[in-house]
Amino acid sequence: MAVKFADRMDNLQASEIRELLKLTEKPEIISFAGGLPAPELFPVEEMKKVAVKVLEEGGQQALQYAATEGFGPLREVIANRMNEKFNTKVSADEILITSGSQQGLDFSGKIFLNEDDVVLCESPSYLGALNAFKSYGPKFIEVPTDENGMIMEELEKILETTENVKMMYVIPDFQNPTGRTWPLERRKKFMEIVNKFEIPVLEDNPYGELRFEGEILPSLKSMDEKGLIIFLGSFSKIFCPGFRIGWVAAEKEILEKYIMIKQSADLQTSTIGQREVAKFMELYDLDAHVEKIKDVYRVRRDLMLNTMKAEFPEVLKFTYPEGGLFTWVELPKGIDAKDVMAECIKSNVAFVPGGSFFPNGGKDNTFRLNYSNMSDERIVDGIKRLAKVLRDFV
Amino acid sequence: MAVKFADRMDNLQASEIRELLKLTEKPEIISFAGGLPAPELFPVEEMKKVAVKVLEEGGQQALQYAATEGFGPLREVIANRMNEKFNTKVSADEILITSGSQQGLDFSGKIFLNEDDVVLCESPSYLGALNAFKSYGPKFIEVPTDENGMIMEELEKILETTENVKMMYVIPDFQNPTGRTWPLERRKKFMEIVNKFEIPVLEDNPYGELRFEGEILPSLKSMDEKGLIIFLGSFSKIFCPGFRIGWVAAEKEILEKYIMIKQSADLQTSTIGQREVAKFMELYDLDAHVEKIKDVYRVRRDLMLNTMKAEFPEVLKFTYPEGGLFTWVELPKGIDAKDVMAECIKSNVAFVPGGSFFPNGGKDNTFRLNYSNMSDERIVDGIKRLAKVLRDFV
Repeated sequence: MAVKFADRMDNLQASEIRELLKLTEKPEIISFAGGLPAPELFPVEEMKKVAVKVLEEGGQQALQYAATEGFGPLREVIANRMNEKFNTKVSADEILITSGSQQGLDFSGKIFLNEDDVVLCESPSYLGALNAFKSYGPKFIEVPTDENGMIMEELEKILETTENVKMMYVIPDFQNPTGRTWPLERRKKFMEIVNKFEIPVLEDNPYGELRFEGEILPSLKSMDEKGLIIFLGSFSKIFCPGFRIGWVAAEKEILEKYIMIKQSADLQTSTIGQREVAKFMELYDLDAHVEKIKDVYRVRRDLMLNTMKAEFPEVLKFTYPEGGLFTWVELPKGIDAKDVMAECIKSNVAFVPGGSFFPNGGKDNTFRLNYSNMSDERIVDGIKRLAKVLRDFV
Repeated sequence: MAVKFADRMDNLQASEIRELLKLTEKPEIISFAGGLPAPELFPVEEMKKVAVKVLEEGGQQALQYAATEGFGPLREVIANRMNEKFNTKVSADEILITSGSQQGLDFSGKIFLNEDDVVLCESPSYLGALNAFKSYGPKFIEVPTDENGMIMEELEKILETTENVKMMYVIPDFQNPTGRTWPLERRKKFMEIVNKFEIPVLEDNPYGELRFEGEILPSLKSMDEKGLIIFLGSFSKIFCPGFRIGWVAAEKEILEKYIMIKQSADLQTSTIGQREVAKFMELYDLDAHVEKIKDVYRVRRDLMLNTMKAEFPEVLKFTYPEGGLFTWVELPKGIDAKDVMAECIKSNVAFVPGGSFFPNGGKDNTFRLNYSNMSDERIVDGIKRLAKVLRDFV
């Protein structure tokens, strides 16, 4: 075929996670690969009532085109909820409803990145974000991390010596893929650095409400003095992902750009979907729902980590997440987690090899485990199977 | 603020339509500006049953993440329906579900356009598409049109003398903004040219099923021998737009690119939204629904055009659309429709000035009228008010 694609298409390849998820769809596989919430917690019965109510009350308007910015009452409740949960001071008109927070990631790349501009991110970082940014041809610089997340001295060094840094991408709470959380001191130091260099920051926060224990830490957005923090939120992990509803919260001059991009990208997010999510929060108690999710995930995390402690070879390291969906495993150097994965598939257990979470490659001796999507029994069974394979490798 | 946006943001400005729609939201305004379907035809009662049924049958899976490509049964029914209505031979795996066909437009720009590449389009063309492409910095070459759409001799001349044409964008059926339709001979000639030059073509077809009279003409996709036609479809005009569900139909090598871009753009379109649209088509008769829409729009078109004939100054020209949502008016040269619009707002009637439908500017003596969204009475009343203003201008 003579058809020519744009150069940017050379930067892209089908996501490893997606291809893996296809492999792991067989029911006999115990998959710790995805990042799926526990479906048994989805409020199916409630949503029947909500759907009917939205059509009764909204009528035809619930099925018509609507404003690009999003459904007014939903923007309102999101702003209020953010201010309550994350200690921010955002107003409804600083919120844009997006088709999942993935869309906010893509828009951010489109708004800030020329080809060869630099994006700073944690090392490792969320694969879906890296892929979204890659369409715009940036260079990635990975900021070194430790068990407390990004190392601020390293960040400062990089900013002092690097030109064209247009954007920073961070997940300070229960990071994907590592499950790590930045302590308060690091957040303060980060904001000092941000204010000094005046670089816009994407604070990706899909898991922040899913804290199982320990102290709630202030969001970066709550410490933002210069309007540099762009907060990405999502209902996927605290409610359900099938509606594809997330949001961007940013100060107005920046949000205006997101709205313009939203308009040309897909005009608006589903009118009826937005109204249903808002109506659920009106009729039911989302906080109580989040508590239920946390109770289930806490048990699963404990089961997974306790089984790992008991069964994994001692030389392996893994993180202890205080919330969120993931833990992160480090194998001895020289072992490629992709090889381990190939063996695991034979034992009907799966995870995501860590290499693709490093945009510049290199650390293939890592992998990510998800504990939110499997029953207690299958967690124990799956980790035992995985441990058996691992013992052959180390 | 020191924040630097990407260069592409300079190409974009808030859409004239969107700003106008804001102006025209006041209830006293009779607005022929938007492109909104008639909401009184939306199947509100049916959708209550559909929503409950989807949750009863799909349960938790209706609220979970799902495949990027789209919901299998929906892709299946779309392929079958296209083959029936548009005489194509597409299969379900050549369909990607998008968040409205606007998303297909944006993806097309992303997939095909480097900066300064050339896009060919009809003169005038759909503003929303032009805005989506503009993010990728192309040059537009407008192919001259007459009352039968694109003039193929002009297209051929342009292709013979222009380098870097990466994509053609056309709306052969009831075009937005003109309401014009390409006759069979032009379609055949177009395909000859396309096959000779092997340029990918976006066939945007949101209105094709809304033919009020005359012969149904084969879609370009049905005449495609080399896999060069990318068909964009939508439920917005034949069902309702609030779900934001459209699709791209393309041969697999090309569709694979769209799927990759979809994944990084928003992972997937709403799981529950897709299931609801599929379920509506299973439980109810979409064809019968489309007939109802056509009956209403036919009457409105007749009312609008008859009133225009009776009331407009004779020197004005306008198109006679055999389907779709729009007619297109040409004022004598030298009159700027934006000036007319400013006066019209004072008389509480609105339309879209035509200038922004020409990507390279110039023809400000034109405007677009929509007849699908206003009641019969308001159409007559609004056209009379508009005619009164026009008489002061010509």
